[in-house]
Amino acid sequence: MPINAQILDNPKSDRVRRIADLTRAKGRERSGRFLIEGPQTVREAVTWRPDIVQDLYVEVSQALEHPRIISSTLEKIVEQSQDATIYVHRCTGEVIRQISKDAQGILAVGNARAMHTGPEDLELGEQPQIAAFWQVRDPGNAGTVIRAADAAGCDAVIFVDDCVDALNPKVVRSTVGSLFHIPVLRMGTGEFFGWTAAHKLDVWAADVYGTEQRKPESLPQVLANADSVASGKAVLFGNEARGLEPGILERCDRIVSIPIYGKAESLNLGTSAAVMLLSLAMAGREMI
Amino acid sequence: MPINAQILDNPKSDRVRRIADLTRAKGRERSGRFLIEGPQTVREAVTWRPDIVQDLYVEVSQALEHPRIISSTLEKIVEQSQDATIYVHRCTGEVIRQISKDAQGILAVGNARAMHTGPEDLELGEQPQIAAFWQVRDPGNAGTVIRAADAAGCDAVIFVDDCVDALNPKVVRSTVGSLFHIPVLRMGTGEFFGWTAAHKLDVWAADVYGTEQRKPESLPQVLANADSVASGKAVLFGNEARGLEPGILERCDRIVSIPIYGKAESLNLGTSAAVMLLSLAMAGREMI
Repeated sequence: MPINAQILDNPKSDRVRRIADLTRAKGRERSGRFLIEGPQTVREAVTWRPDIVQDLYVEVSQALEHPRIISSTLEKIVEQSQDATIYVHRCTGEVIRQISKDAQGILAVGNARAMHTGPEDLELGEQPQIAAFWQVRDPGNAGTVIRAADAAGCDAVIFVDDCVDALNPKVVRSTVGSLFHIPVLRMGTGEFFGWTAAHKLDVWAADVYGTEQRKPESLPQVLANADSVASGKAVLFGNEARGLEPGILERCDRIVSIPIYGKAESLNLGTSAAVMLLSLAMAGREMI
Repeated sequence: MPINAQILDNPKSDRVRRIADLTRAKGRERSGRFLIEGPQTVREAVTWRPDIVQDLYVEVSQALEHPRIISSTLEKIVEQSQDATIYVHRCTGEVIRQISKDAQGILAVGNARAMHTGPEDLELGEQPQIAAFWQVRDPGNAGTVIRAADAAGCDAVIFVDDCVDALNPKVVRSTVGSLFHIPVLRMGTGEFFGWTAAHKLDVWAADVYGTEQRKPESLPQVLANADSVASGKAVLFGNEARGLEPGILERCDRIVSIPIYGKAESLNLGTSAAVMLLSLAMAGREMI
């Protein structure tokens, strides 16, 4: 890890301005880079995808005659970033905070293009489990569902149609590193159904209402049939406010709903995804 | 619903200051009242617990010669608040926003003492399912877990030891009404174990690590035994950062962990509670 000898101490420098600009979509587009903030997320990036990390910015204590990284946690992350293409820059706290309020002493700049996964890059196993999200708009939700898909051992996440940018800093933070564990793809709606058909994957809609013709099956009944649960599939979740459109539901092979036993009206998207994906994973892999 | 003839239009009035003060713990203690913000949460309060709602504040359009409630959604909530003890106050948008940035045109003031449920008030059914949380500190988490317990049809939520105030406005908002569907109690740690023993409820710890002597059972294996799943119990979750202390784990009858299949390190508290409580509810009620 090449370490920059100079300590960055000017919060108004061009470099600091350019990095802070990655919090905006335009800044990311312009530069082809994105921001990774906070110890846990940076550590996961450095551990699992050192190939996409370009620069690491870490806070040193203010006593600049003997600059020291401010904590052993951060020191370990820097030591871990052994990849010769990761450049380490030591900064004052002021510089770090100028770039991001969510850095907790460390942040990294990643290569957005190297993060890109296309359908042709996906290596799918025997009975692939895919988590797909149609028109997910809220960055916090997007991060949470990527994390849920990771925990459930899914092979990939697909953001279908008009979704939030997966490299938005709030998405990256909310995945707590899962963005670097599991491939995240983007597809149009037609492309998604074409791709699942070509790979002989059933599409299961996670939906409470279903259509006029097709009421949803209840998740616990679905879980009771371990064979069908383990089969290769993509589970498709709808927009956080509007769910899935009837036109989309009609194209799905099954419609499955999570039962609600109390008086709560609904579960939010992140909770639904975690309950559905982990229930299916548990039933498919460990039913005894 | 007695409607105040006068429209509140002074954001600096004493009344407005007193209500805004309910966002702080001291303000709630002093007055014995708490704040309920936003259409969905206010509607659930008015529907399920009109007895605890004292005042309703709703935004009217600025044309004060012909004041109109700003939307039909809010109008319906006001119509629904038929209880004669709920006083309706029409306000300018400025007054509403001065009280709360999260009101979306409507808020209510509730009676904190009337919301109090003690163990002696609980009516438990045949095989009660209780969700308990030890030292939950984050208001957003506290709201999310109350909502998860509601969705799973739990009989009550117990906040054990030093937890966030369930009437903190962020908790109330995050429950999206579930606070008015399900009783939420507070107990000390000793009190909790005494109460569960007195009611012959097993205590299941939701914990990833267990103790040196006792490794956790894996949730899918537990779910496969429908009889044990349906038995009366309290599922106890730990603090969001530190989990459950060994001393607490030792007092629990079972330790159950949610398996993680991918590379994610952990699930957050809200997600864990939803997956565990809904999985148990599905397996206990609908296994076929």
